[in-house]
Amino acid sequence: MAAPTTQSPPRAVVEQLVREQLYARLRSRPAPGKAPNALLVNISARHCHLTQAAVEALFGPGHQLTPKKWLYQEGQYAAQESVTLIGPRSRVISNLRILGPCRDFSQIELAYTDAIALGFDIPVRMSGEIAGTPGCMLMGPHGYFQLDEGVIRAQPHAHMHPADAAHYQVKHLDTMKLKVNGPLGMTFDNLVIRVDPSFKLEVHIDTDEGNACGLKPDTFCELVR
Amino acid sequence: MAAPTTQSPPRAVVEQLVREQLYARLRSRPAPGKAPNALLVNISARHCHLTQAAVEALFGPGHQLTPKKWLYQEGQYAAQESVTLIGPRSRVISNLRILGPCRDFSQIELAYTDAIALGFDIPVRMSGEIAGTPGCMLMGPHGYFQLDEGVIRAQPHAHMHPADAAHYQVKHLDTMKLKVNGPLGMTFDNLVIRVDPSFKLEVHIDTDEGNACGLKPDTFCELVR
Repeated sequence: MAAPTTQSPPRAVVEQLVREQLYARLRSRPAPGKAPNALLVNISARHCHLTQAAVEALFGPGHQLTPKKWLYQEGQYAAQESVTLIGPRSRVISNLRILGPCRDFSQIELAYTDAIALGFDIPVRMSGEIAGTPGCMLMGPHGYFQLDEGVIRAQPHAHMHPADAAHYQVKHLDTMKLKVNGPLGMTFDNLVIRVDPSFKLEVHIDTDEGNACGLKPDTFCELVR
Repeated sequence: MAAPTTQSPPRAVVEQLVREQLYARLRSRPAPGKAPNALLVNISARHCHLTQAAVEALFGPGHQLTPKKWLYQEGQYAAQESVTLIGPRSRVISNLRILGPCRDFSQIELAYTDAIALGFDIPVRMSGEIAGTPGCMLMGPHGYFQLDEGVIRAQPHAHMHPADAAHYQVKHLDTMKLKVNGPLGMTFDNLVIRVDPSFKLEVHIDTDEGNACGLKPDTFCELVR
């Protein structure tokens, strides 16, 4: 359950345990039943995925990303390296975090608030579906890298192992609802399910969505069909 | 139906008519039935309500707010005047809009994103329920005004005329759900209903919530119980 290079359980798991304990004390509610894994809901702050060619253009020939923090999904990490994003009106976002490892396409995931600040009109897309999306310029300590496309707002989605998908009776690219409890209670009606044997059960929403529903470590969340 | 000083229908009404037309073409859906009024969902950007004493401290003795734009609710307006809000870490928000007319208490309504930027931890409250909430300092061209309390994040809510409340079979302070359609489809599960004979049917969400659900002029929204 632990991420590759950490000794203790990931923060997300600890938070989920705290959440379950707190919730159990607050209300008597049916236990999550036979779900194979606890539901983690995490907020993805703006970030980018880069090709190795982009990393080398930005940080120098032969440069390899350095893991800074391992994420909950196996092998994924926030890199030490960050870049500056230059938008269409020359407005910038500094310290845009790079998530590793490198992929075979470059993609930038922003919240709508970020897009407004930059002067972008960005579409809602699933990761990887970047055809026809706007591009931008990235600046690193070694040089620039131009993306012709790839700036998106990520559709709220859940990563699922096939065992999770079987439990919830869904398949890859089905949609479910995510019910977030609390005073700002909110249900995400179009949560897209991504199923892969390498995935662990985790919902990703962006900072706008996290701020809207007031997601906190003790917020109880449920996946419903 | 027109606001006090405008000749043409308010923008919100025009938008709602456009929305209905667009929606009717996109899908065949049952008509809204016998609802007495069209449902308007508007995003409230950060703003403040002030006492006359606060207005005079900020803008000078005897100063009266000047209406700049009439809002959909009868007699309510965005004033020409704005103030600078100074938060607990001396971070500021400039050009914070004042909504008139003056009230018998001062209150500041921010989105959570604003609160994070300022370094506030603000509670979710209904308008007027400001006991125990944080305060702040306001700065105007004439001077400063200190609020000991009154900085809140507004609970998503709907204004209703008693005829609307009768149609939806709800009473003052009941909750309903607001279903927002579209790719970022989202249901607000705790929409608090406020009923008053002076009110016109209108839902208010904040900028975080509007950005999260991608609310646009053509977004179809429904009130459900």
